[in-house]
Amino acid sequence: MTIELICLDADDTLWHNMRHFEIAEQALLEILKPFADAGVTRERLEAVEIRNLALYGYGAKSFTLSMIEAAIELCGGALSVRQISEILAAGRDLLAHPVELLPGIEETLDALADRGRLVLVTKGDLLHQEAKLAASGLGDRFHGIEIVSDKNADTFQRLFTRYGVPPGCAIMAGDSMRSDVLPALTAGAWAAFVPQALAWSHERAEAPAAHERFRQLKSLGELPDWIDQIR
Amino acid sequence: MTIELICLDADDTLWHNMRHFEIAEQALLEILKPFADAGVTRERLEAVEIRNLALYGYGAKSFTLSMIEAAIELCGGALSVRQISEILAAGRDLLAHPVELLPGIEETLDALADRGRLVLVTKGDLLHQEAKLAASGLGDRFHGIEIVSDKNADTFQRLFTRYGVPPGCAIMAGDSMRSDVLPALTAGAWAAFVPQALAWSHERAEAPAAHERFRQLKSLGELPDWIDQIR
Repeated sequence: MTIELICLDADDTLWHNMRHFEIAEQALLEILKPFADAGVTRERLEAVEIRNLALYGYGAKSFTLSMIEAAIELCGGALSVRQISEILAAGRDLLAHPVELLPGIEETLDALADRGRLVLVTKGDLLHQEAKLAASGLGDRFHGIEIVSDKNADTFQRLFTRYGVPPGCAIMAGDSMRSDVLPALTAGAWAAFVPQALAWSHERAEAPAAHERFRQLKSLGELPDWIDQIR
Repeated sequence: MTIELICLDADDTLWHNMRHFEIAEQALLEILKPFADAGVTRERLEAVEIRNLALYGYGAKSFTLSMIEAAIELCGGALSVRQISEILAAGRDLLAHPVELLPGIEETLDALADRGRLVLVTKGDLLHQEAKLAASGLGDRFHGIEIVSDKNADTFQRLFTRYGVPPGCAIMAGDSMRSDVLPALTAGAWAAFVPQALAWSHERAEAPAAHERFRQLKSLGELPDWIDQIR
């Protein structure tokens, strides 16, 4: 079995992402400091995010709306309009942040491109993901760009069909066990988990350590070697 | 030249959309009534929307964020947290509204399916567009679903290439001169303009009345006949 299709997550796999959400969240904690402890605010924000997920989906605009909602729930009428303005501004900064590639990404993509067609598979806000890809300068390296509202086994099955590759000839690499690794394995593909420091708890899940098509890597730079072992 | 690919816009071409944005906007006018005349609020909201378009893009979440921003700009500290909560609720209603098909859409799609492959081409929020398509029950009728961040000539050229059809064998129908008609014509395809009552001013543009590949229709129900004339 040879890998022909190499699917890669974008946020926190190719470039930093969670650190920008973390900056926005820190701004919220600071704004709400007069009303609530950091822990209380974090907990409320996460509850509001999970509650809104089916309606809002992933991404920076959803996060901004949930920050405003969590702030109102926590502080009620004590919250000022100026403070809501500051939350909106933190959301705008999150959408406009510069794109910083993770270490060695360009060399890794060169090595991967020698081994198969590269496809970017990312979820979140359509416009924001396109803007980040454009800002990254990596757009030309991908055979296909797939921006999806959610990553599940169906998403991956449809994707392998579209690119005309049996699942056993496809591999997915990303930093989310729940969105990148598990659904790709379920769809019959290989999957590499490249964890990063600031994982959103909603994305955490048990590693399928014993699965023959699964491997945990220290960095994406280890992916070309693993693909060579699969060959 | 025979039409092989029939591309259709979704919002206000297959189902009502602007009326739901109008309901949300009416809610905002009502909330801000103590502070500003309807005309002033509408004008400010539109200015904020245009200003945010490059960063936020289209869709209900972007609209909600712009409503909050416009309200804060208009009212400053006089705005209450309860009122911002009401704006958030109007935005949630906009995301959750039921899908109501325009008259005769299912029969029209039957007639169109006899004439070519149908592709849905829509912009806006990825998750919200998917949710509306699912709620519409029309998903199975389309050969392809293309949810894009913007519709320009490049978008249509890439689309025709992906579906393996020369532009002269493709037709696009929609209610926006700026997003559906003009870019499809520029890309070399045929284009039908099916205007609806509540057009967003940003989407208005001059009709290319004399263009040989353009036709204005009273309803989408007239499209099958026009396609037969092109044959």
